[in-house]
Order: sequence, then C-alpha cells, then structure tokens
Amino acid sequence: MITPPYLLFLGDAPDRLAAKVAQGIRDWRPDYAVGQLRLPGCKADLGLPDLSLEAAREAGAKTLVIGVANRGGVISETWKAVLGEALAQGFDLAAGLHNLLRDEPELVEAARSQGRSLHDVRIPTVKYPIANGEPRAGKRCLAIGTDCSVGKMYTALAMERTMLERGMKATFRATGQTGILITGGGVPLDAVIADFMAGSIEYLSPENDPDHWDIIEGQGSLFHPSYSGVTLALIHGGQPDALVLCHEPTREHMRGLPGRDLPSLEAVRDLGLTMAQMVNPAAQVTGISINTSGLEEEAARDYLAEVEERMGLPTVDPFRHGAGRLVDALEAV
Amino acid sequence: MITPPYLLFLGDAPDRLAAKVAQGIRDWRPDYAVGQLRLPGCKADLGLPDLSLEAAREAGAKTLVIGVANRGGVISETWKAVLGEALAQGFDLAAGLHNLLRDEPELVEAARSQGRSLHDVRIPTVKYPIANGEPRAGKRCLAIGTDCSVGKMYTALAMERTMLERGMKATFRATGQTGILITGGGVPLDAVIADFMAGSIEYLSPENDPDHWDIIEGQGSLFHPSYSGVTLALIHGGQPDALVLCHEPTREHMRGLPGRDLPSLEAVRDLGLTMAQMVNPAAQVTGISINTSGLEEEAARDYLAEVEERMGLPTVDPFRHGAGRLVDALEAV
Repeated sequence: MITPPYLLFLGDAPDRLAAKVAQGIRDWRPDYAVGQLRLPGCKADLGLPDLSLEAAREAGAKTLVIGVANRGGVISETWKAVLGEALAQGFDLAAGLHNLLRDEPELVEAARSQGRSLHDVRIPTVKYPIANGEPRAGKRCLAIGTDCSVGKMYTALAMERTMLERGMKATFRATGQTGILITGGGVPLDAVIADFMAGSIEYLSPENDPDHWDIIEGQGSLFHPSYSGVTLALIHGGQPDALVLCHEPTREHMRGLPGRDLPSLEAVRDLGLTMAQMVNPAAQVTGISINTSGLEEEAARDYLAEVEERMGLPTVDPFRHGAGRLVDALEAV
Repeated sequence: MITPPYLLFLGDAPDRLAAKVAQGIRDWRPDYAVGQLRLPGCKADLGLPDLSLEAAREAGAKTLVIGVANRGGVISETWKAVLGEALAQGFDLAAGLHNLLRDEPELVEAARSQGRSLHDVRIPTVKYPIANGEPRAGKRCLAIGTDCSVGKMYTALAMERTMLERGMKATFRATGQTGILITGGGVPLDAVIADFMAGSIEYLSPENDPDHWDIIEGQGSLFHPSYSGVTLALIHGGQPDALVLCHEPTREHMRGLPGRDLPSLEAVRDLGLTMAQMVNPAAQVTGISINTSGLEEEAARDYLAEVEERMGLPTVDPFRHGAGRLVDALEAV
C-alpha cells in the first residue's frame, strides 16, 4: 500500500490530459492530495496549492506520486533530480510508468540509503494464488463494457462515493495502474501472469461482511479480442452479484481496432450474465452507465432515456448526473 | 527452438506417469528420440535404447531433454551432476520445470563456458505483441474442452499426424510446456503476461498458405473459473475456423474444483462458437474428441455413438481409434 497523503508531481505535462492520473486522485481522493509540484513549462493545473518539497513535507505529505505520463519511455534527468531530492527529504515515491523507478540505479540507491520505498504499480509485487472458484461472503459489483476505456473506473469510483455517503459499506477495488495510484493499492491485472489472473481478483476481493460491497474496477471487454481474456478472468475471479454495463455512444470502433464495431448493450448483457452466472448463479445486471461526455446535455438525456426504455434498466451518466440510481439498484439486490 | 534429436532424461522417475513429457516425445516425435538416460531407481521405461551421454552424442543427439517431473521443486545434486556433464559433452539442455535451469549458477556457467543453450520452456523468452485481431491467411483448428486435461493436446497431435500422412499442410502449435518440449517450440501461454496472451497466439500462428492448417493446442476451459481467461485469449488470438470439442466422460468434477460439475458438450459448443465467431464469423464446430481411457472398449464405443447421435458431429477417441474422421471434417471445411 502507498502511504497517503500525497504531493502530486505534474512534471512538465504538455497538457491537462497528460496529468490524468493526478486528476483522478484529485477528483476521487481529495483528502490524499496535499498539493501539486510542477516544473517549468507544465501546462496542467489541478487547482491545488503549488508546494515545494519542503512545504509539502511540512503539510504532512508522505509520498510523491508521479501523476503524469512521461515522454519517450525514459525518466528524464530533470525528473530524476526532483525524485532524488524528494527521497532525500523523506518522501516515498509512487509511479505507474512503464519504465520502472526500480530500474533507475540512482533512485534505488537513494531510496535504500534513506530507508524509503519505491512503488512501481505497473507490475505486481505479490505472488497471487490460482483461483479456487469458491463462493465467499460479501457482495461484489463489477462494471463490464462494450469496449475498453468507456468509463468503467469512473463508474466504480462514483458508485463507491455515493455508497459511502449513504453510510453503506463499500470499497473500490482497483485493477489498473490509475486506480491503484488513486486509492493506494490494488492489482495491476494487465501485468499479471495468465495462470494467476482470476486468483489475483479473488485475492483483491476477499471474504467480507455480508452487507459489504466491493466495487471492482472493470478492464477491457469480453468483445475486445486483444483483452477479452483479462475481462473473463475478472468476471470469474470477481464472482459479481451485480453487473453494471458501461458504454460510450460516440465510439466509432473498438479501441485500437479500426473497422471492428462495438457490440450492442444487449450482447454485453447476455454474454456477461452467462459468464458471471457460471460462478455466481444469482448474478444480475443492475444498471447501465453511459459516458456521455461526447454529447450535449439534451442529446445525453435523450440517449439515456432511449437506452433505459429499451433495456429496462436504470441508465445514467454517473459522472454527469450522479450514481444514485445505480446504487439504488444495488440496495435492492 | 530446441535442436533435435534428443536424449531423453528420465532421471529417477518414481513411476511411468512422472515421465509423461518424455512419453509424449516418444509417442509424437519418435524421430527426435535417440535414446533414454535413466538413473538408478528409475521406474519409467520408454522402450528406447538406454544410452550413455557419449553414446547418445555418437548417435547424433543434440539436446538432453528433461522428460520427467522433479520432486520437491529443486534440481537435485544428482541431476545437476548429469546435466553439467551433458553440457561438458556438448549437449544443449531443455526443461519445463518450475525451477529454472537458468537459476542454477553451475549450469549457467557450464553452458556459458561451453557455448551451449539452456532452454527453460516454462516461461516465455519472446516479447509478444498485443493482439490486433486482424484476419490472416491460412486455416486454424482449435480444441476446446469441457475441462482442463481432457485430451486437447493429444487430439491436436493426432490430427496433425493424420493430416501429414494424408499429405495435407498442417502444423501442431504448442501452447503448453509439454507440447513445446515435444515439438521444440511454441508459447507457454499460462506464463504469458495478461495483456499479451491473445497477441502471443497471433504470433504463434501467423499468416500461412490458404490451404495450410495450424492445429493449435487448447488450454483450460471457458467454464473453468481458474483458467477461463487463458482459454478465451486462445480463441480470440487463434481465430479458429474449426473447433473440436474435447471431453473426458468419467471426470467427476472440474479439475481441482471438487463439487463443480463439468459443463455439457452442448454448452461448450454454444459458448465456444459465440466466442470464436466474434473474430471469425465462419467458425464452426467440426467434431468431438472423447478421451475414453477410463472406459472399456464396448462402453467407449457405446458412449461415442450416443454422443455422435445426440450432437450430430463426428465423435471419436483419436488416441484409441484414430483421428481420421476429425480430419475428414476439416477437409470438408
């Protein structure tokens, strides 16, 4: 687990999108975000106090989180100077970069000599078990999508927030690098060895109180040929009681696969249920989450109403209009 | 690729089953099997000449293949002495053990100083691509099962043999450690990183002549919660034109999961087709392979006839009665 609270390193982010990890922490774990650290030329701004390393330490920050994608697959000398200084001042470091902190000898040596931790959330550090498929106490909700990157993580985080506001027992369970950095822990499922994928999700979502909900972050899509196996492992390891279908209506083809159409929500519902009921016969689809960011307000409301009518399930954009109706449906399970 | 022919190391195998990798090579690549090397106490016997390292080298053997499971997860000192001597005499070594040859410093040093290769087929050595899902020339057949270990590898090897005997263009594509050791190459799919599973199968089964068949070794089952994601990646990466359903009728529960029933052949057919047709709309189920080793001859024939009648597909035990009818069905595709 990564120790909060954080100072968010935005580096020399060329635009706001490059800092989406930091933005996610800012949006979903604002208590963790003490301030931001920006280098000259940084074009991103989270609206947090700009703090020096010293000021952030005084404000209680424990970990410098790299909340920005780097360029060219290397950690630049400019970055390394800041990261090394952070270690010297007592920060742990956390990053989800493809090039690992642990592969930088200067940082490894500085962390060792200072007794600090380097968290590379890109790859697993746990030896996960092989899944046993046994039922476990507690309830689980999983978002499954028509495609990759249609809003599954935001849906799960929005549901968790609403559930906690209502006093329900709920825990978001991260399965991707951004989700892990936002919440401080989880399983980087795309980097897990094939045989242990489902087992890693059983590990991530263990037995719990009967009225506790794990809201498990979805990945990929059963219909995406590059990543479908990851999605199926998530369903079979997660044993969801509730499935939420996620979709982005302006997507013209499956992500990264020009010419390949997205499946219908009906197809995702039917196949998702078939797969989930293999391990949990009581599994049901409880709602639909639409990422309407590509639609104007009126078009968004029309689209949501059309899908709700067609599918007979509560249909919302949780980021735009709140996750309340998705949570109502879980309360009715 | 592992260089044939082989001397098969049976070590101190406590029984015949412990030497099943060597038996597979003996059965399916007899041209590769120059002889066997047994230590005192070995209870397995492939019926091959017992050769010393020197005699095997003289007979042309290039690689000493460890064809036996070891005990306790360590490579014993007794084994290491033999393996070191083999390297000194000019053999490469190949093994599918969980404990890797490359993790034994003496063997690494001996291989380096002799200019020999250590092949650990347990883990991948290739950086596989992410799957692109694009159609590619050539035809592909994949065995999918009601469970793990129901005869998928033997079915594929038997089909390949029959096809080659008929002068068809066919290549068995190994996806597991035993299959890799038998044929000298392949993808150890259970050890591939999640994001690259489907891509590894695209890599394994590239574009080929339009009348060439890859017979891809199946793994796991869509219905086995521990490994289903691996199976789905195999279907989506393999883009099979033909599916062969595999089943073992005396199995009482899913492998390793007491209390969990096997799915019906109908369920495997329907879900397998749904998944395969996502990436290859022309995919069809062409036959059924039953492992009848647990049945007497008459019971086996009755069972095969009953399934054939019920399913309307050629149904055989290819190991017991030959794979001819499964291959007839491919010729009709």
